[in-house]
Amino acid sequence: MADNKPAMDIAALEAFLSREFPQAFHPASGLSIEKVWFGGSRVRQAFRDHFIRPGGTISGPTMMMLADFALYVAVLAAIGPVGLAVTTNLNINFLRRPEQCDITAEARILKLGKRLAVLECSIFSDGVAEPVAHVTSTYSIPPISGT
Amino acid sequence: MADNKPAMDIAALEAFLSREFPQAFHPASGLSIEKVWFGGSRVRQAFRDHFIRPGGTISGPTMMMLADFALYVAVLAAIGPVGLAVTTNLNINFLRRPEQCDITAEARILKLGKRLAVLECSIFSDGVAEPVAHVTSTYSIPPISGT
Amino acid sequence: MADNKPAMDIAALEAFLSREFPQAFHPASGLSIEKVWFGGSRVRQAFRDHFIRPGGTISGPTMMMLADFALYVAVLAAIGPVGLAVTTNLNINFLRRPEQCDITAEARILKLGKRLAVLECSIFSDGVAEPVAHVTSTYSIPPISGT
Amino acid sequence: MADNKPAMDIAALEAFLSREFPQAFHPASGLSIEKVWFGGSRVRQAFRDHFIRPGGTISGPTMMMLADFALYVAVLAAIGPVGLAVTTNLNINFLRRPEQCDITAEARILKLGKRLAVLECSIFSDGVAEPVAHVTSTYSIPPISGT
Repeated sequence: MADNKPAMDIAALEAFLSREFPQAFHPASGLSIEKVWFGGSRVRQAFRDHFIRPGGTISGPTMMMLADFALYVAVLAAIGPVGLAVTTNLNINFLRRPEQCDITAEARILKLGKRLAVLECSIFSDGVAEPVAHVTSTYSIPPISGT
Repeated sequence: MADNKPAMDIAALEAFLSREFPQAFHPASGLSIEKVWFGGSRVRQAFRDHFIRPGGTISGPTMMMLADFALYVAVLAAIGPVGLAVTTNLNINFLRRPEQCDITAEARILKLGKRLAVLECSIFSDGVAEPVAHVTSTYSIPPISGT
Repeated sequence: MADNKPAMDIAALEAFLSREFPQAFHPASGLSIEKVWFGGSRVRQAFRDHFIRPGGTISGPTMMMLADFALYVAVLAAIGPVGLAVTTNLNINFLRRPEQCDITAEARILKLGKRLAVLECSIFSDGVAEPVAHVTSTYSIPPISGT
Repeated sequence: MADNKPAMDIAALEAFLSREFPQAFHPASGLSIEKVWFGGSRVRQAFRDHFIRPGGTISGPTMMMLADFALYVAVLAAIGPVGLAVTTNLNINFLRRPEQCDITAEARILKLGKRLAVLECSIFSDGVAEPVAHVTSTYSIPPISGT
């Protein structure tokens, strides 16, 4: 899977997500897409006070949400806006306590099949090299309409 | 693991969570604890418009967040408010599309060790028998202070 | 999923497995099917000296192999000998050290879709109530021929 | 985690495994250690006829066993022969059908804590660039004796 042209660029992805997922992807959400390519994505969640947990860390569900977003963007960037690709499995290992700052996620497709895509994703405290969490996930890709 | 007396009852759990996790557990969150016992918990997330996703379903991260809550409540109900038990792994299989209503989660401890607790959790659309998702998860239990 | 008639009974499953998987399922393997129903299975692995690991326990791969067998039998019992159902994901939590004896596994279908089946499976030291391991797994079900 | 000196080199690992795990690691097993470093390992399973499955592929349990071996070697190479590090969780995604040849596995430590190590592992058909399976796993590291 070469680092080449995605099926949708950042502008097309943002337009699609704003239209289809307005509850999740909207100007106040703090979510943004930093990079996409055929085979992966890098996304960001701006820090929000309600993500804080005891000890000055960021909640697990916030990381899971961002991973889910990165994975979906990577799938769309590979197969285009065919709609209704759905997560069937997500496995997350929490590695280190995130700091109280933005978090970023980098997703990478391990396998793109006709029916399933398998991906991995690493989550980072912004600017820190060691990941705070690691995710693997499977998406079910809908049959092309008409079949 | 008999269905017997938990280390903390619902009132004690609510007081602990309100104090320690005010960003997540507060009156407007829609989260509530329905039942706890030594070995498990049942919790509820009231429906919120921003959980909706295309097709009138509920977002994956909402289900992951509720599972995380149910699991943590079950751990606290078993070991008491020793603080800082943290999720190390969470694996979720999405089974069916949830409906546009409250979701509930039932957590059950599979193993309670000195250092690790392993749990499973089923998530339901309120009033529907077949689960919408199934979770397994591991918590790391902190050493008792002084050791 | 009622506890009702499977698509294949034990004799039909044994004949199918002996024919299709002679390297894994043969008289000396120590594998046997104890029970099948629509929605699940119970299988057994007879003790073998080469399963032993330090401390008188049984190897992790032996448990994974038995879970894989239980899951496949449960899938076949639900969909019949349509061939080529393949595991796409398997997640195992090791809970307790198994004893030096037979191990059994009980698989249960959580969801049977057209394209995917999701199952869980508990593994036991023979005669001990608490499970030694817990598995969740996804199978990809091939399209019916002609479609 | 730099690619630097492991706590045990290949000869020390082989001696330890032959002594502690004679049922799994012996001259006829076909298992070998190709490379170790602080933070990872590469291992090989020589092809054996009994690994074959319908369609000329290699069984899932063979891949799980090899991943388990690679992960354990990587843990030992990081913490030394302290004994009794045990797998607590293993999650495998099967990506492509392996060919009828040797399989290799590359393990990499994602996090090495005092109590837990989290690793990932890719499995390959010998000489093929795209992995046939991807694994994440957690090991529980025993407390240092005396504590």
